[in-house]
Amino acid sequence: MTLEKKPLAIQDTYGDRFQHCWGCGPQNPEGLHIQSFPQGDQCICRFHPGQEYTGGVPANLFGGFIALLFDCHGTASAAWFAHRAKGLDLQEDTVIGRFITARLEIDFKKPTPMDQEVLVVAKALEMTERKVMVSMVLEAAGEVRAQAKMVAVAVKDHM
Amino acid sequence: MTLEKKPLAIQDTYGDRFQHCWGCGPQNPEGLHIQSFPQGDQCICRFHPGQEYTGGVPANLFGGFIALLFDCHGTASAAWFAHRAKGLDLQEDTVIGRFITARLEIDFKKPTPMDQEVLVVAKALEMTERKVMVSMVLEAAGEVRAQAKMVAVAVKDHM
Repeated sequence: MTLEKKPLAIQDTYGDRFQHCWGCGPQNPEGLHIQSFPQGDQCICRFHPGQEYTGGVPANLFGGFIALLFDCHGTASAAWFAHRAKGLDLQEDTVIGRFITARLEIDFKKPTPMDQEVLVVAKALEMTERKVMVSMVLEAAGEVRAQAKMVAVAVKDHM
Repeated sequence: MTLEKKPLAIQDTYGDRFQHCWGCGPQNPEGLHIQSFPQGDQCICRFHPGQEYTGGVPANLFGGFIALLFDCHGTASAAWFAHRAKGLDLQEDTVIGRFITARLEIDFKKPTPMDQEVLVVAKALEMTERKVMVSMVLEAAGEVRAQAKMVAVAVKDHM
C-alpha cells in the first residue's frame, strides 16, 4: 500500500511562529485551515464554508467570511509570488517569507450561495522588494461573486 | 427587584429574516453576536475576540477578524444613519432597513493585540437614497490599529 502524499500548501511552508492564524494557520487547533496552492502563474484556494457562516439571510455566505478568505489567500499568494520571483520552488523544507496585509479592497458583486465550495484565484499585479500587489476573484457556482485587491508587505523577520 | 433593561442594539432591530449573520445576527446560535449602538452622531461597537482568533503570530488578532468587525459594524451603522436621517429613533418595535456591503476598503496600520477589547467607531461620510458611505476606525489598547471605508447599500425588501 502506498500512501498518497498530501500536496504542500503555501501555509505549510510558513515558519513555525507564523502558523497560528485562525483562518489558515496549520498550528491553530480551532482554526479553519484554509489552504492556498500555486497553479501556474496564479494561486488558488478552494474552501467549503461551514453552515454556521451565513450572512444576514440564511441562503448567503457572510460577507466577513469572504473578506477573511481574501485576507488569508492574498497574503499566502503574495508570499508565493515573491518566492517564485527569486527563482525558488516550494519543497518540503521550504520556509517561505511571510507577508501581512497592509491594505485590502473588496467589491461585493452578488451574493455568494451557501452549501457551495468557493474558489479564490489570485494573480500578482505588481511587486517591489517588500510589497506585492495581488488581485483576487472569488467564484461560487460558476459565477464571480466578489473581487479584491491587496497590498501585502513582507514581514522583516520571517524565520 | 428590578431587572435592568438590556440596551437595544441596531442588530436587534433587523427584520427577523435578516438576523442570521455569523458575525452579528441575534438568530445565529453559533455566531459571535457582535452588537452596534448609536452614540450621538457616531455608532460604536465594542468586542472582545475569543482567544482562538489569532493572526499568524499568537500575540496579534487575525486581520480577517478585523475585516469582519468592519463588515458587521459598517452595515449596522449604515442602517442606523439612514434611519436617523428620516428623523426616526430606535425603539423596541423598530424594524430598521437592512444594508449590505457593496465595497469595503481596509488599511491595517499596526498589529492589534490579543486579550483586549477592540473599539470600532463609525461615522457617516455621505448618503444617497440607497447608499451610505461609512468611515470607521478600530482601536485597541488606546491606539488606532486599522481604518476602513465602506459603501453600504439598502436591501430593497427590508421587512
